Amino acid sequence: MADKAQIQEAIEVQGEEVRKLKSEKASKEQIDEEVSKLLQLKAQIGEDDGKHQFGTRDYNPKQMAIREKVFNTILGCFKRHGAETIDTPVFELKETLTGKYGEDSKLIYDLKDQGGELLSLRYDLTVPFARYLAMNKITNIKRYHIAKVYRRDNPAMTRGRYREFYQCDFDIAGQYDAMIPDAECLKIVYEILSELDIGDFRIKVNDRRILDGMFAMPWKEVRKEMVSEKGLSEEVADQIGEYVSLQGGMELAERLLQDQKMSQSKQACAGLTDIKLLFSYLQLFQVTDKVVFDLSLARGLDYYTGIIYEGFLTQTGIAAEAQNSSGAEESVSVGSVAGGGRYDGLVGMFDPKGRKVPCVGAEVMYKKNPKLLSQLQYCEDSGIPLVAILGEQELKDGVVKLRAADISRADLIAEIKRKTSEA
Amino acid sequence: MADKAQIQEAIEVQGEEVRKLKSEKASKEQIDEEVSKLLQLKAQIGEDDGKHQFGTRDYNPKQMAIREKVFNTILGCFKRHGAETIDTPVFELKETLTGKYGEDSKLIYDLKDQGGELLSLRYDLTVPFARYLAMNKITNIKRYHIAKVYRRDNPAMTRGRYREFYQCDFDIAGQYDAMIPDAECLKIVYEILSELDIGDFRIKVNDRRILDGMFAMPWKEVRKEMVSEKGLSEEVADQIGEYVSLQGGMELAERLLQDQKMSQSKQACAGLTDIKLLFSYLQLFQVTDKVVFDLSLARGLDYYTGIIYEGFLTQTGIAAEAQNSSGAEESVSVGSVAGGGRYDGLVGMFDPKGRKVPCVGAEVMYKKNPKLLSQLQYCEDSGIPLVAILGEQELKDGVVKLRAADISRADLIAEIKRKTSEA
Repeated sequence: MADKAQIQEAIEVQGEEVRKLKSEKASKEQIDEEVSKLLQLKAQIGEDDGKHQFGTRDYNPKQMAIREKVFNTILGCFKRHGAETIDTPVFELKETLTGKYGEDSKLIYDLKDQGGELLSLRYDLTVPFARYLAMNKITNIKRYHIAKVYRRDNPAMTRGRYREFYQCDFDIAGQYDAMIPDAECLKIVYEILSELDIGDFRIKVNDRRILDGMFAMPWKEVRKEMVSEKGLSEEVADQIGEYVSLQGGMELAERLLQDQKMSQSKQACAGLTDIKLLFSYLQLFQVTDKVVFDLSLARGLDYYTGIIYEGFLTQTGIAAEAQNSSGAEESVSVGSVAGGGRYDGLVGMFDPKGRKVPCVGAEVMYKKNPKLLSQLQYCEDSGIPLVAILGEQELKDGVVKLRAADISRADLIAEIKRKTSEA
Repeated sequence: MADKAQIQEAIEVQGEEVRKLKSEKASKEQIDEEVSKLLQLKAQIGEDDGKHQFGTRDYNPKQMAIREKVFNTILGCFKRHGAETIDTPVFELKETLTGKYGEDSKLIYDLKDQGGELLSLRYDLTVPFARYLAMNKITNIKRYHIAKVYRRDNPAMTRGRYREFYQCDFDIAGQYDAMIPDAECLKIVYEILSELDIGDFRIKVNDRRILDGMFAMPWKEVRKEMVSEKGLSEEVADQIGEYVSLQGGMELAERLLQDQKMSQSKQACAGLTDIKLLFSYLQLFQVTDKVVFDLSLARGLDYYTGIIYEGFLTQTGIAAEAQNSSGAEESVSVGSVAGGGRYDGLVGMFDPKGRKVPCVGAEVMYKKNPKLLSQLQYCEDSGIPLVAILGEQELKDGVVKLRAADISRADLIAEIKRKTSEA
């Protein structure tokens, strides 16, 4: 590791470079690249982490009082829904975590080999829960677990997230009528985010199978179909991002089930049927004012098999707060505060006979987690070579963001063709 | 690491060896040695750990309900005494822990070097608390902290203790009139152990300076003095263990202050004066029915500078429960459930200018910790070559246990001379 004074000097030089590029009105790509270098340097020295230099933090009595209040709200909700709690060790056998998180596995903290088994700090509470179910042959439980998890993330890069943070998990394991436990998990997220009084929120819902089905489609045909069948203009059809920017509720699921292209994918149809059923329960639970079916929602973990969802705050103040003072003015939405999904295969991975226990659950994050990064992560995990990003800023600037590099709308199709032929 | 099947086979062979020695009525030393080997083998394979094989365990909902009840009692007491809570990360910089625990440092879990700072799992909550005080320049706080700590202990050897366990810490930092915070800490241990309803208990109190003063004395002179000044018989004086087996209250402290030998040690006198003052407060608090000044009490950590104390259950059922089925029939008291002391130098170790903050605190252990082992540990840490153990069993058998090897009373002085001349 380089000397801290050296890094500090490099940070100053790099900061100067960024300021220079900005004053010269250099291209956004160029500035972004240099800002990214600056953030990486800062991460090395841990400059964004306050008093702690390794991506973690202390909590003083005032912060603990807030935490206690938040946890009591969450706990009250979990208990109201009839959940019991368990606890598992902070570390697991390394092999327990292996192969469960895809590309994110590189963020797992390993313990030093001091003799005995190889151990790693838990990355989430879901995998230990699945291991616990399999080990104790439990096939039916509603459990909550509020505990810390560990990720060797770059805290300066992801802004506002620490390497140690709390997750508040609620999961339902067992055989139930389709979508009933899934709907309850969403109701719980809805109740908690309402009660916490942290501003307006939305819960996006999607299904892993719809994503997988969609990404398996040949893009050229999708475009053709969009133009010929849907009567969309070529220009609109070219915005492939549009397809995943669809948002709605039950009616959207119904419409997509009619969609000729979609309906050819068995798994996409299974997902859409479940989404439709889910929304019928969500209507009964009266939570559809905040829950949207959003085809752009992706979650980065390998183990999801069905419904996925994410709760996020709609206020932009959060994003502004996450900016740092020198150089990094790129606004990133860090509003994601809860997430979860269905993972029907995970328990079976820990059972010697592979016996499956269907599970679904919500985790409420005590620290915010930048949604965009986790989406990009999902794509990287799934080997998806290109992501079209069409956010508020992109709409304003008249561009579609292709992964990280901005590109004009006119060049989009050509770029996609070029990139896909490379792959 | 050896193959599990190989270890399992070795365990069976070793178990057979132990049974054979017992049936042959072999010497206790010989059996103990072979049992110790057996336990080490079992520890390798983690046989005593139930479902987990690395010295940790899960908690199911029933166990969690018990834990919650216990914690609520403890929490209520801490809050009643006006403490605030803080939280610190589960890992610290390795250098933060270095040099704080003496010989116990070998039990610290290190994280793998995956780039960045070298980190270790916290070994207790006291050192992180001292680091927190120094880092935030806090000189006055009453804080509690209930959290897990980590020790790479041999779980089979220490029976009933896991490598991950909870500590419930209460500490008072700041300048106060002598012994007032110390007395409050003891009152808290008293209240908690009373409220938890886990059977009768005693709290032993001693002072690090008395121990240090005592161990600095030339044993030969102590013996001479015991015979000539105290009018003790030579036989009694020869039982050097006797000196540290003194138990009492304020009157014992007063008596020892008159003791010519003791009074020559400045630090022992300071300790005795504090003990005397402490007991005057303990009388006011009406807790002297359970608190004893016990000169045999030692605590294994480097950082204690004054009063030390330990709460333990007097019921022997605990010890019986800790026995395991095959071979290990040696009864070890695992009744120690709380401990603490004064550590006036620790915060200064983290302050760049070495500014000291006097501190005293109690930790209540959620898992029991074998007292005898931690005493032996203290002696090892402090370079004390010999420990005379005179427990219930030893009294019954008419022996004094010298460290681990039993020896007849008649041979004791010769053995001490031999051992001390070796050193």
